[in-house]
Amino acid sequence: MRSDISGFPEFLPNEQIVFNRIIDTIKEQFEFYGFAPMETAAAERISTLLAKGNDNEIYGLYRIADENSKKSIGLRFDLTVPLARYVVSNAGQLIFPHKRYQISPVWRGERPQQGRYRQFYQCDIDVIGDGNLSIEYDAEIISIVINVLRSLDIPDFHTKLNNRKILSGFLKTIVAENEIVETIKLIDKIEKISPEEFDKTIEKFIISPERIQQLKTFLNVEKIGDNFEILKWLETMNLNEEYNCGVVELNNILQLLKKLKIEDSLVKISPKLARGLTYYTGTVFETIFDGSMRTIGSISGGGRYDNLTELMSNRIFPGVGATIGISRLIPKLMEEGFLKSDKLSPATVLVTVQDRKFIGNYIEIAHELRRIGIKTETYLQDKNLGAQLSYADKKGYNFVVMANEMELLEKKAIIKNLKTREQNIIHFESMEKEVLEFLKKK
Amino acid sequence: MRSDISGFPEFLPNEQIVFNRIIDTIKEQFEFYGFAPMETAAAERISTLLAKGNDNEIYGLYRIADENSKKSIGLRFDLTVPLARYVVSNAGQLIFPHKRYQISPVWRGERPQQGRYRQFYQCDIDVIGDGNLSIEYDAEIISIVINVLRSLDIPDFHTKLNNRKILSGFLKTIVAENEIVETIKLIDKIEKISPEEFDKTIEKFIISPERIQQLKTFLNVEKIGDNFEILKWLETMNLNEEYNCGVVELNNILQLLKKLKIEDSLVKISPKLARGLTYYTGTVFETIFDGSMRTIGSISGGGRYDNLTELMSNRIFPGVGATIGISRLIPKLMEEGFLKSDKLSPATVLVTVQDRKFIGNYIEIAHELRRIGIKTETYLQDKNLGAQLSYADKKGYNFVVMANEMELLEKKAIIKNLKTREQNIIHFESMEKEVLEFLKKK
Repeated sequence: MRSDISGFPEFLPNEQIVFNRIIDTIKEQFEFYGFAPMETAAAERISTLLAKGNDNEIYGLYRIADENSKKSIGLRFDLTVPLARYVVSNAGQLIFPHKRYQISPVWRGERPQQGRYRQFYQCDIDVIGDGNLSIEYDAEIISIVINVLRSLDIPDFHTKLNNRKILSGFLKTIVAENEIVETIKLIDKIEKISPEEFDKTIEKFIISPERIQQLKTFLNVEKIGDNFEILKWLETMNLNEEYNCGVVELNNILQLLKKLKIEDSLVKISPKLARGLTYYTGTVFETIFDGSMRTIGSISGGGRYDNLTELMSNRIFPGVGATIGISRLIPKLMEEGFLKSDKLSPATVLVTVQDRKFIGNYIEIAHELRRIGIKTETYLQDKNLGAQLSYADKKGYNFVVMANEMELLEKKAIIKNLKTREQNIIHFESMEKEVLEFLKKK
Repeated sequence: MRSDISGFPEFLPNEQIVFNRIIDTIKEQFEFYGFAPMETAAAERISTLLAKGNDNEIYGLYRIADENSKKSIGLRFDLTVPLARYVVSNAGQLIFPHKRYQISPVWRGERPQQGRYRQFYQCDIDVIGDGNLSIEYDAEIISIVINVLRSLDIPDFHTKLNNRKILSGFLKTIVAENEIVETIKLIDKIEKISPEEFDKTIEKFIISPERIQQLKTFLNVEKIGDNFEILKWLETMNLNEEYNCGVVELNNILQLLKKLKIEDSLVKISPKLARGLTYYTGTVFETIFDGSMRTIGSISGGGRYDNLTELMSNRIFPGVGATIGISRLIPKLMEEGFLKSDKLSPATVLVTVQDRKFIGNYIEIAHELRRIGIKTETYLQDKNLGAQLSYADKKGYNFVVMANEMELLEKKAIIKNLKTREQNIIHFESMEKEVLEFLKKK
């Protein structure tokens, strides 16, 4: 990946092929569960973009023909705000629960010197209910994300699972109501700060040493054993309605994930998981690498929110969704060698042109290969066979077809595997059978 | 299609599914010929965007956090300028001929009151040579466009074919050199103006009535018969080197199209076809509807250009390409009923939940259906069966799976075709065979 304009990365052809293959795999998984593709316009009203109080790193649009034209629209910086706006505008024509995914670029008007991406892809999947939405959808979304990562042959990973009601229900028993947000902020960055810094900060919100100890026990409960044991521990606490409701939901989701054939080892309860101060209100989850890629951080995350369209509509649209960080993930997987990117052509076979007098014949051979379902490029430039084979090699072709004048007259050609060096004669009248057999050989 | 912000159209879910299906079909055709996908960044330097002297209807970007920030980048208005810039920046890493397609949105900063699209999709395919590019690629591009339209079940259409060298070689014999551009402009709009207006204007460039008559004969030669007869007529003229070269190239392409199994009736020589004052220098073509959709105008067009990267690089990159007007075409085909858009889900089967006590069992059934390769949605909201079947109907599902408590205990369920009303019992232990058989029935 390289950038011609800083912050706007572009792929080289081999990388683009891998990227698209992954996007196609992800789409297929989403569609396997009945999620429909959605594509919103790149621009939104700036008032919509700013409604939730963002950090202002937004690109506005102006007409260069009229610099003083009204500046009212800007580029989306995520896919959630457009989803909310789309649901509100089209509510009358949507069928609820509305299940959609969107894989699209988003833009952030970062200062160039920060060296951050100013264009990158987001990959979001959400189910939106009209008024209410069953908890079972939470389990479905989690299982879809796990299945997507499995289908991509992503190396070791696991999903941390929690429910915000457990965390906030618990905190209400040891922190004053108006300090809860700050406490969650602190918990959210617990893995990025030192224990000393944590201790120093937590004393601002909690005075009683006993309560601080309670908090630490709670934050470490994920270490006591497997999900069954953690859940047991959480259940015995029986703190308040909110907390208990969160525990029941969490248990429910774990049961459903079993039915969806998600192995226990892939999901781990993490009572301290908060997923920031985002709009999440129930289930939250985050998928992270284990092993060699663990430094990357989270690959995916998501959760349940009570109302997608707050501030936009009086109607209540609860939802549950996830985002997969493909813009960071895919280049990293390429770098680490988990995704091969040695093909520069989507085709399987290159038909070479050994004798340009008969170019029509080669074109007919290529056409016949396509007719029998084989993606085929014809090399049409006026170059000798050596140059053509070198082109095949550089573009990552495994198979080439060659024929000289004599062979063409005898209505045959040669198909060659460039890797194994093996080659066979193929006859025009039985090309389908002969070629398909040759391509199947290892 | 509707717009929340004027000029930025968005699809409803059923339309989006059709649109994506078409895009996938187009991509598959392009890839069948070894063209690789390419995605350039949405933003380009404004200096790049304006290099060819455009009409200034460009969206510039500014950071709303800093309105006075340097305004140097803007959104692409087509896919050709980004292609040229990409080829120049990455020339060292590309393998030539570089064969790529790009299907992406572009943006035009039109004044809102003009009621024109400000965001729309373009679909471009090009081959770029380094220094030179064989004429055979022209035929390949034309055949790909025709095959794409065929694969989309586009109703009656044909492709007009010409070579700019024929037109300009001929004009050089009857018009002064410095009037040629204006004459081509006039010819280009011949079908939009009255014969009187044409006569009045042409007299500005050509004084001799005899020459005007020659021009009119030339412009009408496409009516004298089939391609063979038109070519014969063009060949006998033997006007000058440029003209003769164009005729040879045209003939060559017609021969190659035969090898690519393009029926004669689909391609029609049109010596007056110019394709505007664009950068085309040789082959030009344009595909138009016949029959009920003829008013739409051209569906696709393209041609050969001597140098893609003029003004950007000293290196010469000739190319040939085409664009398919999907943003106008697809909504029109939907409107006219050529593309059905009655499905709101990409899934095939909806598993209903008749008895929520057993919700895990229904989730297991859905999981098993997915395992055997069937895209399956589970209806998870707490609604009665009638509401669930109505959801299935509204979302365009043909098949639903249902089971009551008794059936679940007996490890079976019912699969029903909502169109034919036919239904079968399926047993969990032989689900794969029973379901696949049922889905296959008409």
